[in-house]
Amino acid sequence: MLIVMHHHASQAEIDQVIAAVVALGLQAEPIPGSLRTAIGVLGNQGYVDDSTIRTLSGVRETIHVSKPYKMVSRDFHPEPTIVDVSGVRFGEGEKPVVIAGPCSIESEEQMMAAAELVKAAGAQMLRGGAFKPRTGPYSFQGLGFEGLRYLQQAGQANGLPVVTEVMRIEQLETICRHADMLQVGARNMQNFDLLKEVGKTGHPVLLKRGMSATLEDFLAAAEYIIAEGNNRVVLCERGIRTFEKATRNTLDLSVVPLIREMSHLPIIVDPSHATGKRMLVPIMSRAALVVGAHGVMVEVHPNPATALCDGAQSLSGRGFSELMVEINRLNDFLGGRDC
Amino acid sequence: MLIVMHHHASQAEIDQVIAAVVALGLQAEPIPGSLRTAIGVLGNQGYVDDSTIRTLSGVRETIHVSKPYKMVSRDFHPEPTIVDVSGVRFGEGEKPVVIAGPCSIESEEQMMAAAELVKAAGAQMLRGGAFKPRTGPYSFQGLGFEGLRYLQQAGQANGLPVVTEVMRIEQLETICRHADMLQVGARNMQNFDLLKEVGKTGHPVLLKRGMSATLEDFLAAAEYIIAEGNNRVVLCERGIRTFEKATRNTLDLSVVPLIREMSHLPIIVDPSHATGKRMLVPIMSRAALVVGAHGVMVEVHPNPATALCDGAQSLSGRGFSELMVEINRLNDFLGGRDC
Amino acid sequence: MLIVMHHHASQAEIDQVIAAVVALGLQAEPIPGSLRTAIGVLGNQGYVDDSTIRTLSGVRETIHVSKPYKMVSRDFHPEPTIVDVSGVRFGEGEKPVVIAGPCSIESEEQMMAAAELVKAAGAQMLRGGAFKPRTGPYSFQGLGFEGLRYLQQAGQANGLPVVTEVMRIEQLETICRHADMLQVGARNMQNFDLLKEVGKTGHPVLLKRGMSATLEDFLAAAEYIIAEGNNRVVLCERGIRTFEKATRNTLDLSVVPLIREMSHLPIIVDPSHATGKRMLVPIMSRAALVVGAHGVMVEVHPNPATALCDGAQSLSGRGFSELMVEINRLNDFLGGRDC
Amino acid sequence: MLIVMHHHASQAEIDQVIAAVVALGLQAEPIPGSLRTAIGVLGNQGYVDDSTIRTLSGVRETIHVSKPYKMVSRDFHPEPTIVDVSGVRFGEGEKPVVIAGPCSIESEEQMMAAAELVKAAGAQMLRGGAFKPRTGPYSFQGLGFEGLRYLQQAGQANGLPVVTEVMRIEQLETICRHADMLQVGARNMQNFDLLKEVGKTGHPVLLKRGMSATLEDFLAAAEYIIAEGNNRVVLCERGIRTFEKATRNTLDLSVVPLIREMSHLPIIVDPSHATGKRMLVPIMSRAALVVGAHGVMVEVHPNPATALCDGAQSLSGRGFSELMVEINRLNDFLGGRDC
Repeated sequence: MLIVMHHHASQAEIDQVIAAVVALGLQAEPIPGSLRTAIGVLGNQGYVDDSTIRTLSGVRETIHVSKPYKMVSRDFHPEPTIVDVSGVRFGEGEKPVVIAGPCSIESEEQMMAAAELVKAAGAQMLRGGAFKPRTGPYSFQGLGFEGLRYLQQAGQANGLPVVTEVMRIEQLETICRHADMLQVGARNMQNFDLLKEVGKTGHPVLLKRGMSATLEDFLAAAEYIIAEGNNRVVLCERGIRTFEKATRNTLDLSVVPLIREMSHLPIIVDPSHATGKRMLVPIMSRAALVVGAHGVMVEVHPNPATALCDGAQSLSGRGFSELMVEINRLNDFLGGRDC
Repeated sequence: MLIVMHHHASQAEIDQVIAAVVALGLQAEPIPGSLRTAIGVLGNQGYVDDSTIRTLSGVRETIHVSKPYKMVSRDFHPEPTIVDVSGVRFGEGEKPVVIAGPCSIESEEQMMAAAELVKAAGAQMLRGGAFKPRTGPYSFQGLGFEGLRYLQQAGQANGLPVVTEVMRIEQLETICRHADMLQVGARNMQNFDLLKEVGKTGHPVLLKRGMSATLEDFLAAAEYIIAEGNNRVVLCERGIRTFEKATRNTLDLSVVPLIREMSHLPIIVDPSHATGKRMLVPIMSRAALVVGAHGVMVEVHPNPATALCDGAQSLSGRGFSELMVEINRLNDFLGGRDC
Repeated sequence: MLIVMHHHASQAEIDQVIAAVVALGLQAEPIPGSLRTAIGVLGNQGYVDDSTIRTLSGVRETIHVSKPYKMVSRDFHPEPTIVDVSGVRFGEGEKPVVIAGPCSIESEEQMMAAAELVKAAGAQMLRGGAFKPRTGPYSFQGLGFEGLRYLQQAGQANGLPVVTEVMRIEQLETICRHADMLQVGARNMQNFDLLKEVGKTGHPVLLKRGMSATLEDFLAAAEYIIAEGNNRVVLCERGIRTFEKATRNTLDLSVVPLIREMSHLPIIVDPSHATGKRMLVPIMSRAALVVGAHGVMVEVHPNPATALCDGAQSLSGRGFSELMVEINRLNDFLGGRDC
Repeated sequence: MLIVMHHHASQAEIDQVIAAVVALGLQAEPIPGSLRTAIGVLGNQGYVDDSTIRTLSGVRETIHVSKPYKMVSRDFHPEPTIVDVSGVRFGEGEKPVVIAGPCSIESEEQMMAAAELVKAAGAQMLRGGAFKPRTGPYSFQGLGFEGLRYLQQAGQANGLPVVTEVMRIEQLETICRHADMLQVGARNMQNFDLLKEVGKTGHPVLLKRGMSATLEDFLAAAEYIIAEGNNRVVLCERGIRTFEKATRNTLDLSVVPLIREMSHLPIIVDPSHATGKRMLVPIMSRAALVVGAHGVMVEVHPNPATALCDGAQSLSGRGFSELMVEINRLNDFLGGRDC
């Protein structure tokens, strides 16, 4: 950490700051400049909580050099992590994974039909929401545990591991029995109690970026899971909230190579929620692969026009088949290289 | 809802949209224009889920006239709601409420000292966090249930109702026994399961705006609570996330009068979390009252320099006493008028 | 336009609004709903200025169906526009164009060396800034007209058309003589007088998106140029300002296919300014081509470590050669299809 | 400046960075830490251009301690600046100034009527736009030089200094003859050539914050004007662009006390453009004064319902008179103290 003093800070103020650093068990190294003094803080093993220092007289600002995460960082864990979900592998050197399925599970038939077309087109995993986070209470909230059974059946019948969102801690045990992977949604990315409990399960986790989460917040959220002993975490970029309303969110593809550099965890992209527009899903899926995503997750519905949720961004079976052809061509093109 | 067709939409496409509207049990009213046709949708009793319609051929966009909330709206509930928390009243016509206390409960002594100075300065309610949502897992996470007891003792000893944050559903029953008001934090504003369970308790709730929540998202979150039969909800603006980093968040004071017009619920302001800077807390507290907030919540610590959390934005006892003098002067000035 | 009345609007208020619409020479079509009345406005040939209507009693909001642009819109001009810059062609069906060169022109030697390596690597156009928009007045502001000559010489010696930024109207005549294409920078995207004068020159224009410009603002800015009779406009996405600071801006690649659908103008991408990080430039260039950009503009410097401006985001000659090999492979892969 | 090295940076990489710092004529002070080395840079008299250093191998990031402005900073100019505009004084210790008038000048009669009601209500300055920056080219663009004469006449007849926006450099000479103060609008805040020329005039300037300008960008823009020898600059907060669309922009009132601390220049607030809603203008004007603004600028129109521009956010004569009564009461309440 670096402590920057005001231009007019007195020597007494500087001495008080040095004493406060020492009181934290750290060393202080003053760096006198022509305009102001800065004080380097040494000896910390990680992020320093600066709240007691920022308040001292004469301090203009504190600048963190360490980050609020460590175990997710490639600095401290240079080897890439491969996350295996019932045989489907996410990570460096693996073929990108396609997860597909409806936004929400609506019926046994819908889920089975979706699984069949997802399988037929060549995707490796199945998604479907049993518990749905909806902005308003009057929208369809999901079928709950009943839906979970439909999802599991559809996955087993088609040889596809399944992922579904968990919204409350009490659901965890049951969902772990029915699903191969737990999804933590964007709205719960900083529901820290849920993260801790998800960490304790040891189950594979798909952690979506919150819509106002910085890269640092995102990695710190993953750190909550890993700190509980579960490093089977796949990150998912799904768009951030900005002033631009032409798309539902703004897909931030630049974070994919950044995360690959900063962390050893796999990172995939969800172009369906990011854009909210079906026409953009195939094109942004391809872009995701080109920037190095370890997979994509797309919404597919046997009949988007009757979907109870997010129909406008769901691909039809035919649209999805065409996308899979494109994805396979692109993977062949990119293959053999770490793009 | 209004459906806007593409410039080049055919009559067949228009007819298909009309049929889809009718299939939802609603009426469609085409409005041919010189450049394009729009189709008004009539007969809905609330928000229409437009996902099946947005996907039809020839549709450019759908525009919602109804909102994803109703019970929080002043349109349907013109009388202001007064929320009574153990005798402290929030809402139109009531004196603005000052809630104060430390970010986190650190010890029995600290909490008692905080309560005494909060009381002595003239605030009406006491705050203190037992369960703390922190960005990274290595920061202090709060004392938990032990802290809760310290909070309750400190409140009772000083005749101050207390509010504390709830982070997981299993904590609810215990917190309801120890605290007069439940706080749902910004990071959990769209933790919909928590909102529902908070709604079921019937306990007074302080709902903080999420850092990327629109006004509409915020009111829809409150609707989740009210829809469970609990209308004892006080809203709290605490800053939104923007590109500007000179303050921790950007305090959006304009929403206070907007919310007062759109909803019957009380709305207060938290300038401590919004700005993250102690020097801004008094000045933005006064501004909050001038724009019509029904109260403010500020962080106060007996010794900010040793605070385990958010020391840099906490007022000292002396700073808080001075603020209360200012607030009382301002309330007298504003008094008798609906500002 | 649609006018949405308040729930409690009286018939007299509705009648007053209808009268106001008629006073504008338009027709009003009331659409009574179960909760509120909306009023459709018909007969307008374009965007309606709603300021006199929004102010009337009983009006809740007005919703625009028409947009503040028309000539840039594909609705009214379905044929794609090809912009020819001294033989280099931008647009649908053309090979993507690579524009490369240093952020700023620093000397005759630097510019010539840059042009040679840009040419050798296979790019089609040369860039270089003679007039530099810098955040602070003490940063290098560019060589001015002298730099312009170096740019022109370097372009001619290597058979590369050149593009350079114009910052003030008086520069236009001279820049048009020395450069094949005028760049309007992000900070001047809403410098409407400059847009009008650029429009009058008839010269090809590269219009960069402002860092807080919506898609609608961006297209409306292009409309200013076209409205003066100059449709030789190439749009350029270069990142928007968001809360995320891990990259200089947030590159919004989703707008590329959206703009291709909404407008007939070519659209390219500048990954150098968008990301501000050299390591991200090649990867985001490839992504730009995959989402359908008609070209990319990248910063290349013979010696990035000594660059007077933006060295950290500039590719070296070797880095750029490698990128061109990648781009050519990718173009071959994408070729023959409209991606 | 502080240079932060990668965890795994070698001694050779560290030595190379030190050499690069020395090559810039500065001193380098390595600060070895337990996790990584940082290098303090000493001896600079201001902002260091770090582009050559950020590119070196082993460098993770550079952190600026100095800012891209100096003359606007209170650090180097502790005395507050009072800007006198034909006898109206802006700044610390002066009574807050109210500037009022129509968004655009529409006719001789409208301007005179506006001036009369502005004067009658007690405002000190008159505003009116002769050259209007409009998003689209088909909206009313202002009366130009003819409008300027109406503004000057109306001001002189009522004893009110006038301020009007300048959009291009060639207008400067004429506008300086007709207006007491030049306004640089939000869209031109980084039109650096305009800033320089405005600086050369020595005329008082009202500089509006750009809608995506950070505090640092804003102050650096003011530095452009002062660096030309003109320190008669009044800053104006007018809202920033965020995800929230319930208001036209998000009024960032927290910057007012921040700017008062960081700079010696006066700062006023424009609640009309910030909110875009007439009902919010009086309430946010009062809040502006409470947070310490040295004035407010509000849109007033003799007949808002017929305004050619921004009618929805303009106050009527009666609304403005009522606001002035409120403002005067509030000023009396705040008076005698530096709030």
